[in-house]
Amino acid sequence: MELNNKTILTGVKPTGTLHFGNYAGALKPAVELGHQVNREGGRHIMFVADYHAINAIKDAPLLKQLTREIACAYLACGLDPKTSYFYKQSDVPELFELTTILMAYTPKGFMNKAHAYKAAVDKNVAKGEPNDAGINMGLYTYPVLMAADILAYDTDLVPVGKDQIQHVEIAADIAGSINAHYGRQVFKLPRYFTTEATETVPGTDGRKMSKSYNNVIPLFADDATLKKAVMGIKTDCQDINAPKNPDEILLYQILRGIAPTALVAEVRAGLEKGGMGYGTIKKMLLQALIDEVGEKREKYMYYLTHFDEVEDMLHDGAIRARTLVQPVLERAKDAIFNRK
Amino acid sequence: MELNNKTILTGVKPTGTLHFGNYAGALKPAVELGHQVNREGGRHIMFVADYHAINAIKDAPLLKQLTREIACAYLACGLDPKTSYFYKQSDVPELFELTTILMAYTPKGFMNKAHAYKAAVDKNVAKGEPNDAGINMGLYTYPVLMAADILAYDTDLVPVGKDQIQHVEIAADIAGSINAHYGRQVFKLPRYFTTEATETVPGTDGRKMSKSYNNVIPLFADDATLKKAVMGIKTDCQDINAPKNPDEILLYQILRGIAPTALVAEVRAGLEKGGMGYGTIKKMLLQALIDEVGEKREKYMYYLTHFDEVEDMLHDGAIRARTLVQPVLERAKDAIFNRK
Repeated sequence: MELNNKTILTGVKPTGTLHFGNYAGALKPAVELGHQVNREGGRHIMFVADYHAINAIKDAPLLKQLTREIACAYLACGLDPKTSYFYKQSDVPELFELTTILMAYTPKGFMNKAHAYKAAVDKNVAKGEPNDAGINMGLYTYPVLMAADILAYDTDLVPVGKDQIQHVEIAADIAGSINAHYGRQVFKLPRYFTTEATETVPGTDGRKMSKSYNNVIPLFADDATLKKAVMGIKTDCQDINAPKNPDEILLYQILRGIAPTALVAEVRAGLEKGGMGYGTIKKMLLQALIDEVGEKREKYMYYLTHFDEVEDMLHDGAIRARTLVQPVLERAKDAIFNRK
Repeated sequence: MELNNKTILTGVKPTGTLHFGNYAGALKPAVELGHQVNREGGRHIMFVADYHAINAIKDAPLLKQLTREIACAYLACGLDPKTSYFYKQSDVPELFELTTILMAYTPKGFMNKAHAYKAAVDKNVAKGEPNDAGINMGLYTYPVLMAADILAYDTDLVPVGKDQIQHVEIAADIAGSINAHYGRQVFKLPRYFTTEATETVPGTDGRKMSKSYNNVIPLFADDATLKKAVMGIKTDCQDINAPKNPDEILLYQILRGIAPTALVAEVRAGLEKGGMGYGTIKKMLLQALIDEVGEKREKYMYYLTHFDEVEDMLHDGAIRARTLVQPVLERAKDAIFNRK
């Protein structure tokens, strides 16, 4: 992928306490992509989507806490706030005027087809409730805000999971129809690229790692908590010496998603040959987790307890981000109000 | 009505060239209300709703022209831009962030019941089209933007026609549920008052005065155009000397909506007694129109040809308006992000 002079944007919603599933699936690859983009002469934009979060989280102290945690986590994992543009959405007011503009060019049919809205309606229907019961306009319109998030920076590329492809398509559709209407490039058309299916890390019971299943390995917990989580990983009763298929063993699946390649190979060999016990592997996994996040955990704790420093970084990021957004907003206003 | 220390807000959408129907029904009473509010120690806010207009008007030169015309019209009719807050919505960016906030607290059901949306759906159904055909998200969500327009100023009172009561009710409902959720007064609850049914001025063919019926008396036209419109008012074939019921005579109905009380009384008497001809009354009406708008027409033409001066007034109004909006937005962000 050619990243030189390209703008790559990722938003992240503060919606829950972080675990190793988030780390392997989102945090680590996002930070690595950021480094790659910055190294190869692109522009890396990464924001905390706090206005998207209020559609679901109306508990203000919780929202504040989760917003802080996610910001500290990305910084602790190595996101470079000087080179990347790292900010809170709520610090870039131009995004909301842009949203208002995009609304006028967004067919209502687009929103009716949006995944999150459809899922909410399906839930209501299943419960025998009216279609729109409990659905607020923030949830219904969030793809327009997301289009503004993207179009505001003349974004070239948006890394997405498969369920987010639609967001970028909607943004490109709105942009395309505005450009066609005014006969000029008001907005750059964004494209998506699906992030490779990195190893997903299952939970300690074999299901998807999720707080609601109570099966997580928390990301920034202390050693004792980590140990407890790792020791709780479900294992089977096969004989220690029996040769095993590692891909069928939960403990190995978790290790594979997190541990360094050499260790993964070692454990794989041990299981295939037989003789390497689950207790041993759990100890190796625990050590691998501590090695992976030990230093990050310290940074995380530092940032969390010195959040004013993080606040400064985010504000600085927002100021830099706004210098990118303002000309795009002006370009849009020039077109729709015939100013230039 | 007690206006001391009260904030009264009116928005006006630039959607068509002005005629005497607009003048008698909207322009004149709004400007008079503004004078009353300012005189009695209230705060009078009046804005050109250009972002509401883009939902319907996507012809940029036309939108620009209509926006200029409406701004010049209010100034020509005597709106005081120094005492009143007179601005274009698009110059107060805080409104759009506030809209984003309100979205998260607006049940989607509110929008489904909004008059303008329902009317658009009814039209589609009548044509056998899908419900949401041709409906954009700007139209669907405009009551939320309108709620932001109102709540942004801690507005006490909104003068409305009967079909706009719903807008103020929606704004008050959203505000009330946010206040209840956070246990403090984030927003002031606005109230509406219905403007008295001032004489409506029918068109020259007896139907509602409307450009689409081609029956308007244009507001700021030259004498010759005014004369042509007045001479074109439909009359009946009753004998000039027959005593008549003025309330059944179109010419009188138009005159009653526009002319000074003394002249209206004179014509009424003349018709009731008989002997006053329609040609005579048309001449009296024409003179009354010229007397009413002659000076305003000159001012209007001046403003239209010196629009940079108007632009300055509007910008100045926006700067003053923003000083009112900013603390309200901060108050809302303090609540939802738990900042204070």
